[in-house]
Amino acid sequence: MRATLIHGPRDIRVEDCPEPTLRADTDAIVRVSAACVCGSDLWPYRGVSPTPRPRRIGHEFIGRIEAVGPRVSTLAVGDFVVAPWANSCGTCPPCRDGVQVACEHRAHWGGADENGLPVDGGQGEAVRVPNADGTLVAVPGVAEPDEALSKSLLALSDVMGTGHHAALGARVAPGRSVVVVGDGAVGLCGVLAAKRLGATRIIAMSRHADRAALARDFGATDVVAERGADAAAKVRELLGGVLADSVLECVGTAESMDQALRCTRPGGSLGFVGVPHGDDPLPISVLFAKNISVAGGAASTRAYLPELLADVLAGSINPGLVFDAVMGLEQAPEAYAAMDERRAIKVMLVP
Amino acid sequence: MRATLIHGPRDIRVEDCPEPTLRADTDAIVRVSAACVCGSDLWPYRGVSPTPRPRRIGHEFIGRIEAVGPRVSTLAVGDFVVAPWANSCGTCPPCRDGVQVACEHRAHWGGADENGLPVDGGQGEAVRVPNADGTLVAVPGVAEPDEALSKSLLALSDVMGTGHHAALGARVAPGRSVVVVGDGAVGLCGVLAAKRLGATRIIAMSRHADRAALARDFGATDVVAERGADAAAKVRELLGGVLADSVLECVGTAESMDQALRCTRPGGSLGFVGVPHGDDPLPISVLFAKNISVAGGAASTRAYLPELLADVLAGSINPGLVFDAVMGLEQAPEAYAAMDERRAIKVMLVP
Repeated sequence: MRATLIHGPRDIRVEDCPEPTLRADTDAIVRVSAACVCGSDLWPYRGVSPTPRPRRIGHEFIGRIEAVGPRVSTLAVGDFVVAPWANSCGTCPPCRDGVQVACEHRAHWGGADENGLPVDGGQGEAVRVPNADGTLVAVPGVAEPDEALSKSLLALSDVMGTGHHAALGARVAPGRSVVVVGDGAVGLCGVLAAKRLGATRIIAMSRHADRAALARDFGATDVVAERGADAAAKVRELLGGVLADSVLECVGTAESMDQALRCTRPGGSLGFVGVPHGDDPLPISVLFAKNISVAGGAASTRAYLPELLADVLAGSINPGLVFDAVMGLEQAPEAYAAMDERRAIKVMLVP
Repeated sequence: MRATLIHGPRDIRVEDCPEPTLRADTDAIVRVSAACVCGSDLWPYRGVSPTPRPRRIGHEFIGRIEAVGPRVSTLAVGDFVVAPWANSCGTCPPCRDGVQVACEHRAHWGGADENGLPVDGGQGEAVRVPNADGTLVAVPGVAEPDEALSKSLLALSDVMGTGHHAALGARVAPGRSVVVVGDGAVGLCGVLAAKRLGATRIIAMSRHADRAALARDFGATDVVAERGADAAAKVRELLGGVLADSVLECVGTAESMDQALRCTRPGGSLGFVGVPHGDDPLPISVLFAKNISVAGGAASTRAYLPELLADVLAGSINPGLVFDAVMGLEQAPEAYAAMDERRAIKVMLVP
């Protein structure tokens, strides 16, 4: 089969790889119908995170179950499934607490499982899925999704659940004002999540007309192009003299965290989901004085999949709109380049 | 009148000072019946915070209203009142949000009000209170509290409300496991607050027999003397293999924050109220990976005073037990020394 590997900075290749086989009783094999490139895949692509040796890449995929091990009980061959970006067993204490990202038996897409066996990346034709019951979520009543539905299902693997996690971390609720820092796929899904949770005033920060337009489609009431102190002043002006109750940090840089802190009112809440890079950007003296609560981190999208999936199937949310490009798997190198150069918000790859 | 000043490290003096007078229409004058020394007063006492020039000190006091300005509407001469450690106007946006510590018109005990006029410290015979309506809380039905009640009322000025703030930041609720880092007056009040909020498993960290005993009186089910990784292992053992849902950080050092983070389960909540000193101790990568939420900071004890006061008057909580020494105001230097040397948990000063 064909699958994507990263060999080093800006060196993405699609290569022949062995077909996956069941290796444990709790495994499933998924034939991938669509995968995608994540903003976090761009960190090794840009060389910010090291790639000491070539490895399989990709952690978001949907597809059909082709085989299951004898101890898989909730899934069957033929089921169409969404794979969350984080593999999880579903039974350890963190999984029971809904914090599947801290699963004690987690396998890593493109890395290894807890037995040291290699695990396929998501950007390929097929994937061996350890901990299948705890990880995969079957899509009821869907034989073969069309492209629009595929996009929204694929968004549930990571970006929509991550935007939702940011909104929960920021305590978004009806009546609370919201600022979203970051206009990538996660930030845009954060806008959609805030709208879904009942926020009526949602300020998106964007300087790109296409992303700003999608933010408005998703529920943003205002778009702010300013940065830094000017952006905070604009937020204060828009909100009638106060800063925001809830701020979603969806980038992961020190600058974006600073921007988020500047926009949060005293006693407000900051939800952060941008993968942290660089120095610690959480100045405790600011949190202390302003009483800003901080919550978020890596999103356990597995925990949110059932409720978000129901909304996708009901047509009440359409997070798949963040995919503004569809390419064949062989075009993976171009997909990375397009996202790196911000020519695309998010690219779906079809094997 | 007599009042306490700090002149520099370990240099506390009680001196003659002018009697306060009403300076603004919203002022009140309070004749202090009891004040106390705060753990945070020890930072300048120890020279960790600078004292560039002699200044009045103390921010916790109770007493009787002796005079009110013409625009004071909720208080009357003769009322017995509790003064929260943070002065607040009660009407600006942060005050309306219950974040009085971020009051836009805040005056500072021992410092100045927003007009630049000096404000008395709490450790003296009388205090001019700017923003009297927004700051002081009258104690209904109490003409002159006895010593035990005085202690509990005085605890509402800061330490009990601050412990409560830590517990709220840590999302303490029935059924959640709790660890309290810090066995000072605030940490002990954090134990009491956690018990009051319904926690049934409360682990206090202490190496002092007297403080551990009081922690148990306040509701601690376990006391851990270990530190660092050993303490976290002990917590995990006590909780049957998992870390705590809710952790209260009540010290303010990098070490105590590290201890608190080590004891928090993935997805758990850390409430912090220790005044931060030194380097930023919030490693965002740990918060991200473990999904630990962080909330707290300077406590708006004014917001909590009505409900906590009701419980004190009903006899259902007795936070005044944290005062294990009572001294005359003239003994203020000895009160600081006793707390600095940890010979006393908290000292009440009676003018």
